[in-house]
Amino acid sequence: MSLFKRKCVVYTPANDVDLSPYSTEFYLQANVKAPRMTGILVKIFTYLLELPIIGTILLYILLKKNLIHELITNAELEESPLYVPLHDFEDIEEKDVKFIDPSSSPPEKVQHAIDCLPISVGKKPNGTNPFCRWTIMDYSKAYRSGDITPRLVAESFVAAIDESIKPPLQMGFFIHYNVDDILRQATESTLRYQRGEPISVLDGVPVAIKDEIDCLPYPTTGGTKWLHKERPCKDDACCVKRLRQCGTILVGKSNMHELGSGTSGINPHYGPTRNPYDCKKIAGGSSGGSASLVSAGLCPVALGVDGGGSVRMPAALCGVVGLKPTFARIPHDGVLPINWTVGMVGILAGTVEDAMIVYAALSGEIPSHHPSSVLTKINIPRLSSTKSISHIRLAKYGKWFDDCSNDVKVCCSLALHKLQDHYNWKIIDVTVPEIEVMRLAHYITIGSECSTALDSYKEKNFAELGWDVRVAQSIYGAFSGIEYVKAQRIRNRQLQFHKKIFSEADVIVSPTTGVTAYPIQDDALKTGELDYVNGAALVRYSIAGNFLGLPAVTVPVGYDKFGLPIGLQFIGRPWSEATLIHLAFAMQAICMPDYRKPELYYDLLRR
Amino acid sequence: MSLFKRKCVVYTPANDVDLSPYSTEFYLQANVKAPRMTGILVKIFTYLLELPIIGTILLYILLKKNLIHELITNAELEESPLYVPLHDFEDIEEKDVKFIDPSSSPPEKVQHAIDCLPISVGKKPNGTNPFCRWTIMDYSKAYRSGDITPRLVAESFVAAIDESIKPPLQMGFFIHYNVDDILRQATESTLRYQRGEPISVLDGVPVAIKDEIDCLPYPTTGGTKWLHKERPCKDDACCVKRLRQCGTILVGKSNMHELGSGTSGINPHYGPTRNPYDCKKIAGGSSGGSASLVSAGLCPVALGVDGGGSVRMPAALCGVVGLKPTFARIPHDGVLPINWTVGMVGILAGTVEDAMIVYAALSGEIPSHHPSSVLTKINIPRLSSTKSISHIRLAKYGKWFDDCSNDVKVCCSLALHKLQDHYNWKIIDVTVPEIEVMRLAHYITIGSECSTALDSYKEKNFAELGWDVRVAQSIYGAFSGIEYVKAQRIRNRQLQFHKKIFSEADVIVSPTTGVTAYPIQDDALKTGELDYVNGAALVRYSIAGNFLGLPAVTVPVGYDKFGLPIGLQFIGRPWSEATLIHLAFAMQAICMPDYRKPELYYDLLRR
Repeated sequence: MSLFKRKCVVYTPANDVDLSPYSTEFYLQANVKAPRMTGILVKIFTYLLELPIIGTILLYILLKKNLIHELITNAELEESPLYVPLHDFEDIEEKDVKFIDPSSSPPEKVQHAIDCLPISVGKKPNGTNPFCRWTIMDYSKAYRSGDITPRLVAESFVAAIDESIKPPLQMGFFIHYNVDDILRQATESTLRYQRGEPISVLDGVPVAIKDEIDCLPYPTTGGTKWLHKERPCKDDACCVKRLRQCGTILVGKSNMHELGSGTSGINPHYGPTRNPYDCKKIAGGSSGGSASLVSAGLCPVALGVDGGGSVRMPAALCGVVGLKPTFARIPHDGVLPINWTVGMVGILAGTVEDAMIVYAALSGEIPSHHPSSVLTKINIPRLSSTKSISHIRLAKYGKWFDDCSNDVKVCCSLALHKLQDHYNWKIIDVTVPEIEVMRLAHYITIGSECSTALDSYKEKNFAELGWDVRVAQSIYGAFSGIEYVKAQRIRNRQLQFHKKIFSEADVIVSPTTGVTAYPIQDDALKTGELDYVNGAALVRYSIAGNFLGLPAVTVPVGYDKFGLPIGLQFIGRPWSEATLIHLAFAMQAICMPDYRKPELYYDLLRR
Repeated sequence: MSLFKRKCVVYTPANDVDLSPYSTEFYLQANVKAPRMTGILVKIFTYLLELPIIGTILLYILLKKNLIHELITNAELEESPLYVPLHDFEDIEEKDVKFIDPSSSPPEKVQHAIDCLPISVGKKPNGTNPFCRWTIMDYSKAYRSGDITPRLVAESFVAAIDESIKPPLQMGFFIHYNVDDILRQATESTLRYQRGEPISVLDGVPVAIKDEIDCLPYPTTGGTKWLHKERPCKDDACCVKRLRQCGTILVGKSNMHELGSGTSGINPHYGPTRNPYDCKKIAGGSSGGSASLVSAGLCPVALGVDGGGSVRMPAALCGVVGLKPTFARIPHDGVLPINWTVGMVGILAGTVEDAMIVYAALSGEIPSHHPSSVLTKINIPRLSSTKSISHIRLAKYGKWFDDCSNDVKVCCSLALHKLQDHYNWKIIDVTVPEIEVMRLAHYITIGSECSTALDSYKEKNFAELGWDVRVAQSIYGAFSGIEYVKAQRIRNRQLQFHKKIFSEADVIVSPTTGVTAYPIQDDALKTGELDYVNGAALVRYSIAGNFLGLPAVTVPVGYDKFGLPIGLQFIGRPWSEATLIHLAFAMQAICMPDYRKPELYYDLLRR
């Protein structure tokens, strides 16, 4: 009955799959069948893909070659679909946690977080001249002591940005920033400190917002040249409101991969985001601007959105901390609706403590019609205690863990050994089946949703998109209803696997990315680049966080042979951010003793 | 960029749409562009649809002509998707309700329901010789008094079925029934009564199960010739288990429209289900067998599954009560997984009281991985009280209410007048916008899900399907991921409309179907028939119950000029079954005083 003979996989019921290290489950490496393309090649490919009949045939071949038909479309499985990774809030037994009323004000929440910090925070760690970025507490203390004012910091900030946009740097940190708005906020903050009335420790602290999140007075471009004209930004996003309530200086809209549809962070309209550790390398995406700003010392914290690793990947590549909370922990109102069931606001920060402070500020009541309306207590780990980090069990899937560049593998394994030795944490060997299937199912999901969200702009505006994103959008729109629903059945199946693993482990540990930052090639600057091989390696460890809505955190643990950062990731149970933050804090303490300064680093508090 | 110029609708944000009777919202009548087809025509059409390229083009034209592209695919709207109509359980203020612990045993729940019945139940109502089917309480009293035994009833039942399957009747009640199994259960029940130990009032009461629900020792065919071979029935469905625990006699698997993919109830493999009021007319579908069995007096109660009106439509056409509870009220385990977000187990019964008793037996803990895992208190209305039925506000959308055959309109309006006069209920005129859009969005949803569920059988088994269902399956498989997700955005939008209406009305009132039972034509017997015009008229009032997961009930309120039954429907707030049942009970008391006997009626308790 069908044109081509069906090739398909028959999946064993999830419950019957062996997740032990002795499992016979095959580890399928991503087998991306798409050559790297830039320049004229990508233009021709786009043209062909957008042709009515030839395009349809090309897309069919592309999906087939990439095993989507075999692994998803024609798959036989018995699990029912799970559409939204919204988890029941069970009172999981997190130790050493302070629970905060979700309806308290953001400054109150921040104060609760501060109360949970160990006394040592603020002191520079011991060791041989380790590099440490200025933290929120460094800013707060400097402002309170009067050593420096928010106004002076803002002026340094503006000067640094002005310098960074010109050759030779051309850092592409921001899509929009408004000097007057920055200085106005800084002046107000300065006056508050002069009156002795700072709102919170975040008062006067510069924070950048990914240009996927509404933040007045800026348009929300989503990295495009046109989306803000079609969808004017009328108000702050809910998460931005919460930061503003804490007195932060919102310093502008950070650069991103256009429409979040890529992992390199190369934006043909606003320039590529660049890695402060080596400005000729990518910062990663899609929240590349936010990651590079934090990495370069310009903000202790920035916000991103993580729909398929888009916070964690650039965080790892730029050597900063990336925290993606549980689906629905942070309200999604005012974030560009380019998908609904995988994207979440995430935090990029120089340290785990700073990620925690902002996590406290952002979490809480969800005011929206988003599918994710839940109200949960906010869990802040008491970092001053160390009881909760004993007897930790880390689930590790060796074949997956090792499916990365040699530098990443060696560095992450070493970090893991340190954690075992120092904290006596136990490694539980497991098998996480069908990771590549999950990646494809997630791709179908985010693709169909993005395509639906942007569908009405297709005819009028898509010609203005970068070429790589036009290709992505063509593929995104090619999935069938059957494929979408089947991807949701895979989602249910994967959640069952993960739940079972979490019944015997506290977190799953993995590298954050399969490769480190790679070079930005000249031919990619104008057209963007199609590099699905590197793309697949970058997202390899990210998908469970998005598709299953699980919280995850990445912490820098070392460098590759070129001195580029490498991140290690923990993926946690739903709603277990407190545990994750606690473990990340422990990891930070021992895994980056030789933390080195990026090539590009601004020292805003140094006078 | 696209092959055809896009025609599309830009929807006003749901919150800004005027739902008052003075709304300028246009009432769009279903404009079905598909001729009635049977016999050789439907075979040719099927052949063409299943051809690779011609089929694709035909399907494109079909969807376009039926406004799916214009109203859904290319629609511009701002609501986010709602994938599963699972409602928060808010303690809505239902008056005169007994709340039952959901973990109590089914017999306990039944006893609670009995305690809520008015004393008058069991007495025949006054009036000029009104027809009344035997109720559960009639069976129970007769068994307890020893007037008759379950064994004798079962023997009469078997004799009646034996007669009904032969010419001239050929009623097609069942797909499978097993005389030994029926008599064995009846004997056991008889012994229990003889020992003075009946389990509940349901002990010994014959109940039929739609062949979409697992019930041992029968295969579950779903109306097909093959599905039971691919998916063997290994256990009772959860709802069947609960009935069995109450002592019911499970009398067999009732006939249905194949795969639930049609509304006529004409099954080419097992014979058409026929209407006991006129055996030459349809019983409706898809739960036609269950409806006709209750209508013919063979069971006081039968189970059906309602994915797009499939319980309420045949109930209305056959002159019985149909109750479709809130999504996830009754566990879905062991029901054929042919969709996940619209189908629900429903109850067909001769009276509202009997529907309530079985509702109590079936509701409660949801043991499954179904997207619908919620646990709510079970709400049983105290029918003995009448306080709760005063000050009732019925929302009515005139243009929609009147969009039906003249007989239906006159009869339903008359019933409504009676209710107003007798109970002083108030009609609130409203506008329910975009009802036809909701029908199409629901069609995309149930189609994509059904297609996904059955996808793996396509190559091997679809040639064995009836021709009409093959056509349906071709259309079901033709939707894109974008269309599926957009349909879910329509779902969210419609839920907002309905919630707003429920903020000022207790229920929405409408006819149950737009037409009454129509003739079974000879040419449809072997191939099934494609009659989307009648189909659209039948489902016109059903969709909100499925797509939005709202509870709904239909009660017979009169007859058309041919003496065929007409039903009036109440649609309620999520979880408000108690209110619905109470109102239906009030409606039953005054709207069917001249209740007439069907052409085919068996009197199992008469000795």
